[in-house]
Amino acid sequence: MILDFQTLQEKFRELLIKYGFPPVQAMQIADVFAETTIDGVFSHGINRFPRFIGDVMDGTVKPGVEPELIQSFSALEQWDGKQGAGISNAIFCADRCMELASSYGIGCVGLRNTNHWMRGGSYGWRAAERGFLFLGWTNTLPNMPPWGGSNTVLGNNPFVMAMPRKDGHLVLDMAMSQYSFGKLEWQKRTGEELPEYGGYNLDNKLTKDPAEILESMRILPAGLWKGSALALVLDLAAGIISGGNTTRKIGELKSETDLSQVFIAVDIERHMTPEQREKLMQETIDHMKENNEQVRYPGQRSQRDRNTHLEKGVNIPDDIWSGILKL
Amino acid sequence: MILDFQTLQEKFRELLIKYGFPPVQAMQIADVFAETTIDGVFSHGINRFPRFIGDVMDGTVKPGVEPELIQSFSALEQWDGKQGAGISNAIFCADRCMELASSYGIGCVGLRNTNHWMRGGSYGWRAAERGFLFLGWTNTLPNMPPWGGSNTVLGNNPFVMAMPRKDGHLVLDMAMSQYSFGKLEWQKRTGEELPEYGGYNLDNKLTKDPAEILESMRILPAGLWKGSALALVLDLAAGIISGGNTTRKIGELKSETDLSQVFIAVDIERHMTPEQREKLMQETIDHMKENNEQVRYPGQRSQRDRNTHLEKGVNIPDDIWSGILKL
Repeated sequence: MILDFQTLQEKFRELLIKYGFPPVQAMQIADVFAETTIDGVFSHGINRFPRFIGDVMDGTVKPGVEPELIQSFSALEQWDGKQGAGISNAIFCADRCMELASSYGIGCVGLRNTNHWMRGGSYGWRAAERGFLFLGWTNTLPNMPPWGGSNTVLGNNPFVMAMPRKDGHLVLDMAMSQYSFGKLEWQKRTGEELPEYGGYNLDNKLTKDPAEILESMRILPAGLWKGSALALVLDLAAGIISGGNTTRKIGELKSETDLSQVFIAVDIERHMTPEQREKLMQETIDHMKENNEQVRYPGQRSQRDRNTHLEKGVNIPDDIWSGILKL
Repeated sequence: MILDFQTLQEKFRELLIKYGFPPVQAMQIADVFAETTIDGVFSHGINRFPRFIGDVMDGTVKPGVEPELIQSFSALEQWDGKQGAGISNAIFCADRCMELASSYGIGCVGLRNTNHWMRGGSYGWRAAERGFLFLGWTNTLPNMPPWGGSNTVLGNNPFVMAMPRKDGHLVLDMAMSQYSFGKLEWQKRTGEELPEYGGYNLDNKLTKDPAEILESMRILPAGLWKGSALALVLDLAAGIISGGNTTRKIGELKSETDLSQVFIAVDIERHMTPEQREKLMQETIDHMKENNEQVRYPGQRSQRDRNTHLEKGVNIPDDIWSGILKL
């Protein structure tokens, strides 16, 4: 079924209001779900929406809650997300770290007790759109064994890095596993093998079958020991900067909640003129693509999909859409 | 040959003074080369020292030069390394971002026109030792093809993240390639295969032979498309924040110089008490090692090697030491 952005946005908003969100928050959250879907990232867009409503119904996500300031010192702040919606909490903190960056050159916000922020890249796109360089990350429930071990004790803790560019922002959004769970679930749906090894099956063999990996819950860290080590330090840094939980503690909760996140923005207007910056970026991208035309920069595919889908609508599988209509 | 820390340190210092470094800078640089060697990271320690002296002799590294402030706005500063020694420039900027963090909660320094900082982890250890959470990265000359391409146009741009801990700091120091060139060179020396694929040979086949990879100069990005994308955004961010070169431009120079680096420190004393922080870290590390005893946290092996080598001395291959004595 071909749907346009407005249809998705309005349906999401209507449902969020029905499930208890005040209008402004409903609009914010609906926008992010619709944008993520339009960008072609179904796994954290429309496919995830019913589960999000489930989280609201079982009390994991509390509609209408706003973050509360815990500590503030110049360019560094700590906020409590109070189990509100991950999207609205993350938008708030991304905006807050940009305000701090405008005042101090760089700004950092730690957010604790929040919920899943869905597509981490959303906050990178948001910051880039406003002219900031952005770094951010979240922890998750335990879903990845450390390199060299078999117990699933690390989170795959997505890391986001973004920067503005006139002809398409650069937005990197990477989980510390070679594949995100959203990708594995989507790939399982399509019945296709993964292009590369994505984890271990129950017999402890590397596999490209997404169903086997979802069964074992043993995903492969990206870069083997590197993704494993980075996942650990991102988790600890999120816990320390926010004063919140690390993955270990999150794994003891009844569902994935009370997450810790970090948002950092740099006010790059102070460093070089926009013209200089555009030139520097374009020269590097051109150089990368020289005799490597097929190589993409991070954010390029989302931008392309967004442009196509805004113009022609996006093809949503019938069963997914009918699931939404039944909510 | 078994040598102790003081012997290494004094020899390096003596040579640095001989090749034109003023005493304070010679001491700083000698300390980092000796510490890196004692930590077991020969590739960026003693093995690299003769090449560093070569860079001084051919004018790439300018002894005695100090960084110069270009721009300052509250917690964000831009410095020009003026082609001074990478180690002394990086120590200066790491210390400077910690001062900014003490004043503003978080501090960020961009450094341009600097030289190779040797082991990036050195600045992570330094910040952790002083109680700061640290993030930093550098760009490099082009030494890695992007995922999906064959031209060697990206740097492997090492990224460092560190945090203090009473029983051993956590210090992650990772190049964006699965293996660093230092590791490949060291492994080639020992004649051993790499444990995992590290790059492509001249026939475009994945290989574990370090010599073949050093011949093709086609190293594999860590996490395939992930390390490739992260390398690109780290390079651009370093260029933008420092106002300096990206890898593309560095590749046009006669040698690897005029690099761009970023140093970020967070004053984490403000977030939780040291006791709370130690508890949070220890619980997470204990949890990671539960039934995964062999799994190490980043920094663990360096700390162990350091303790052993400080007590018993470090075994330096005779040909390496005699090379040093001939300088």
